[in-house]
Amino acid sequence: MKINGEPTRTIRLHPESPGIVQVIDQRQLPHQLTWMDLTSVDEAAYAIKDMVVRGAPLIGATAGMGMYLAALEAVSAQDFRRFLEQAAQTLGQTRPTAVNLHWALNSQIQVLQQAATPSEAVDRLRQNAEDILDADEEQCRQIGLHGLSLIEEIYARTGQTVNILTHCNAGWLACVDWGTATSPMYQAHDRGIPLHVWVDETRPRNQGAKLTAWELGQHGVPHTVIPDNAGGHLMQHGQVDLVIVGTDRTTRQGDVANKIGTYLKALAAYDNGVPFYVALPSSTLDWALRDGVREIPIEQRSQEEVKYMDGLSPHGVTSVLICPESSPAANYGFDVTPARLVTGLITERGICPASETGLLSLFPEQAAS
Amino acid sequence: MKINGEPTRTIRLHPESPGIVQVIDQRQLPHQLTWMDLTSVDEAAYAIKDMVVRGAPLIGATAGMGMYLAALEAVSAQDFRRFLEQAAQTLGQTRPTAVNLHWALNSQIQVLQQAATPSEAVDRLRQNAEDILDADEEQCRQIGLHGLSLIEEIYARTGQTVNILTHCNAGWLACVDWGTATSPMYQAHDRGIPLHVWVDETRPRNQGAKLTAWELGQHGVPHTVIPDNAGGHLMQHGQVDLVIVGTDRTTRQGDVANKIGTYLKALAAYDNGVPFYVALPSSTLDWALRDGVREIPIEQRSQEEVKYMDGLSPHGVTSVLICPESSPAANYGFDVTPARLVTGLITERGICPASETGLLSLFPEQAAS
Repeated sequence: MKINGEPTRTIRLHPESPGIVQVIDQRQLPHQLTWMDLTSVDEAAYAIKDMVVRGAPLIGATAGMGMYLAALEAVSAQDFRRFLEQAAQTLGQTRPTAVNLHWALNSQIQVLQQAATPSEAVDRLRQNAEDILDADEEQCRQIGLHGLSLIEEIYARTGQTVNILTHCNAGWLACVDWGTATSPMYQAHDRGIPLHVWVDETRPRNQGAKLTAWELGQHGVPHTVIPDNAGGHLMQHGQVDLVIVGTDRTTRQGDVANKIGTYLKALAAYDNGVPFYVALPSSTLDWALRDGVREIPIEQRSQEEVKYMDGLSPHGVTSVLICPESSPAANYGFDVTPARLVTGLITERGICPASETGLLSLFPEQAAS
Repeated sequence: MKINGEPTRTIRLHPESPGIVQVIDQRQLPHQLTWMDLTSVDEAAYAIKDMVVRGAPLIGATAGMGMYLAALEAVSAQDFRRFLEQAAQTLGQTRPTAVNLHWALNSQIQVLQQAATPSEAVDRLRQNAEDILDADEEQCRQIGLHGLSLIEEIYARTGQTVNILTHCNAGWLACVDWGTATSPMYQAHDRGIPLHVWVDETRPRNQGAKLTAWELGQHGVPHTVIPDNAGGHLMQHGQVDLVIVGTDRTTRQGDVANKIGTYLKALAAYDNGVPFYVALPSSTLDWALRDGVREIPIEQRSQEEVKYMDGLSPHGVTSVLICPESSPAANYGFDVTPARLVTGLITERGICPASETGLLSLFPEQAAS
């Protein structure tokens, strides 16, 4: 998507120096756009671990590029293969629960095994890393094209600006380009359909206010930041035509684990007859699970993320305490939205009902799984 | 309720100098407890207007005391009555939509009319101001005693810590003592029933994180601050036994206007079979309205309250920007929870269903209104 009018990806090879991988330092957003140069596997591992990059697809892409950087380093090492196996381990331990991370590393290890010489391995690992980026972009683009039909249908019916609500950041900043939940919005905007996005700020980490607002603004998509409390009121008063959110994990029956608070918006959408869609690459489908509320463990994160909030002050980016120092806080990372509240799932293969039957209609190869 | 172990009201006559009214400067909470001395009607008006005090009952109490302070000033003025009429006007313009404010001022003007001399007026206005405080405390205490029965019933059934969720601050800081939504909690806690309160931080102004957490902590009530996004997840997992919130305005059919986000919690409570109660003094019942969603206008406040958040930093209390400077934000003050989602209303006269029939069973004198 665009930054300052320039089409940009979240990760790229340095335009003049292809031994350097560049990523946006997302810790600095929205107050500052900084590119970070990665020149070694350790720097790639740091970028993942320290959340310079975040979002499952972008983590996978960064790990893939990390293996290419490792190969560049290893060319001069005594034991080329051993260095790369070590590199895969280092990268694999950065965010152990990230599915895309391990998928990308396995893909690179297979490529490595096909290479006869270190220099061939360097070329192949670079090519495969670029393929991983391209594949992610294409998958997100397909999600966007399918989701676009929903927005087009609303616009054809009303002839008015389409109001979409989203939660957290399932945007291009989490991917290589387009994003998942945002991809239909960018597709519609680029086709001249007037739309406006209500951006849930998404406490406690404010990924909506920090990241989604920033990326929509850079691409020129009209949007408004709202407290997470506001969506129900907006839906009661006809100010939301469509909700699109992302997901971290979706079960076989269509239950959706996503950022904490998603369930509350799904309830409000259901209560007001507002369509509620979840956009997802099929890699986030967990075919082994059925009942999301019962089976998906919900991560508890540091209470400091609730008690302190950071933002830009005259003293630079500052963290402020927003409650009594002595009050404890709880910080659940995700909640589960039951399939009954989900109008449909937008995947790279098309849109389906949030049910086992719906999902198998798009992914028949999973019937026996 | 207690501060540092000492039973305290939010407003009081100075213990040694009864010409001074003292209020807690709530703008400094939770980081600092500061009492502000009010010695004139202008200082009382400032305290209301600048939100040193907030909450409808406390605003009314402060206005009542403001008239007493005005009388002390007026004793030496040329035209005693004219000064006091002017004072009532000044106070009345501080928060024009506050019902309790005008009720308290009218009550004081009636008292004034019964006084034969300025010095008699001073005594009567002081006595009536104290009566307003006592009446508010008693009303809140009654709400608490009725609500207590709900907590006792849960505790008798489960024998375990009763988990209550609340939104915003309908606490004693908004009143003279006890609060409305918090009053049943304090009553139960003081009787030794083990309870724990989930405190919604209540963006954008964080009255939950700032005020409710502070007052519960000072009184020794176990509590945990949570992002507004978390309540649905907690209810899905059986971690909430009861929701009690306050209200700014309740219609004849039991629709409830309260701080933005209340509706989302009511939806989650309904979806999970968690009882959802609203505590209210009958002064907040608006018998002229029926359909709250359609008829209650919702105030839009400054977008700066969403874009900036204040808290304690090493530089003192600091305001930080949490989204792109260029992104607009929307700030709706309240939402309306339809009566169908409300299990019951807790009033000073007892608990009733959220319906016209329910309300008229407690307030039969309103049948013809």
